[in-house]
Amino acid sequence: MNVDSSDARHLDHVAIAVPSLDAARPVYERLTGVRCSLPETIAAQGVRVAFCGPIELLEPLGPDTTVGRYLSRRGPGLHHIAFRSQDLAADLTRLAEEGVELVDPEPRPGAGGHLVAFLHPRSTGGVLVELVQRTD
Amino acid sequence: MNVDSSDARHLDHVAIAVPSLDAARPVYERLTGVRCSLPETIAAQGVRVAFCGPIELLEPLGPDTTVGRYLSRRGPGLHHIAFRSQDLAADLTRLAEEGVELVDPEPRPGAGGHLVAFLHPRSTGGVLVELVQRTD
Repeated sequence: MNVDSSDARHLDHVAIAVPSLDAARPVYERLTGVRCSLPETIAAQGVRVAFCGPIELLEPLGPDTTVGRYLSRRGPGLHHIAFRSQDLAADLTRLAEEGVELVDPEPRPGAGGHLVAFLHPRSTGGVLVELVQRTD
Repeated sequence: MNVDSSDARHLDHVAIAVPSLDAARPVYERLTGVRCSLPETIAAQGVRVAFCGPIELLEPLGPDTTVGRYLSRRGPGLHHIAFRSQDLAADLTRLAEEGVELVDPEPRPGAGGHLVAFLHPRSTGGVLVELVQRTD
């Protein structure tokens, strides 16, 4: 195992669906030892998010959103994982060629203005996976 | 947000419950860009595990194990997250004093011979959280 090889794709964050950012924030500040960022609303995804170090907290903007339905169905918990990509467009092309089903065939803007794309859980052993190309 | 502050607790790994290590291995080798480790059986926990960079794959040793029951109930997916601890015994004492419910009140041996302890999801917003004090 070599997580520092030049080919390795590092974990960017782990996202957790929560009913309330305000309630979850002190829990994850204690666990991570860092302050959570100020909440950011991503209307297109129906969520309000905050980052506590490597943890992204996702609060649905309403029950009829993707995360709202996830909470109704499964309760609060781990929602997706995100790997960092150096070249998201190239990674998506390669993954599609390898038969991976893409939720987002093209990079789109995500939290923090970074470029993101999701892969379908059907292709990733049941886990919703995001790729993030950071723009900072 | 400052994930590099001296107080920050870094993410050690993310664990994914899978019905078959052999089937999941190529998927996560492609996603992480690294080779998965050779499988290790942890009989006390009823699992066979392999690490693909920051991803731990968990295959149950049978249907009547914690991970076996998890798979029956929820299907394959994200199982727990692990933060790195520099002093696990001290962290557990402090967390218990702060009212966090501990699954393991004392550090115990986990995968790779590292010291580990789990916190109860009731105290962590529905997420099973592990702390790992690495011994390498």
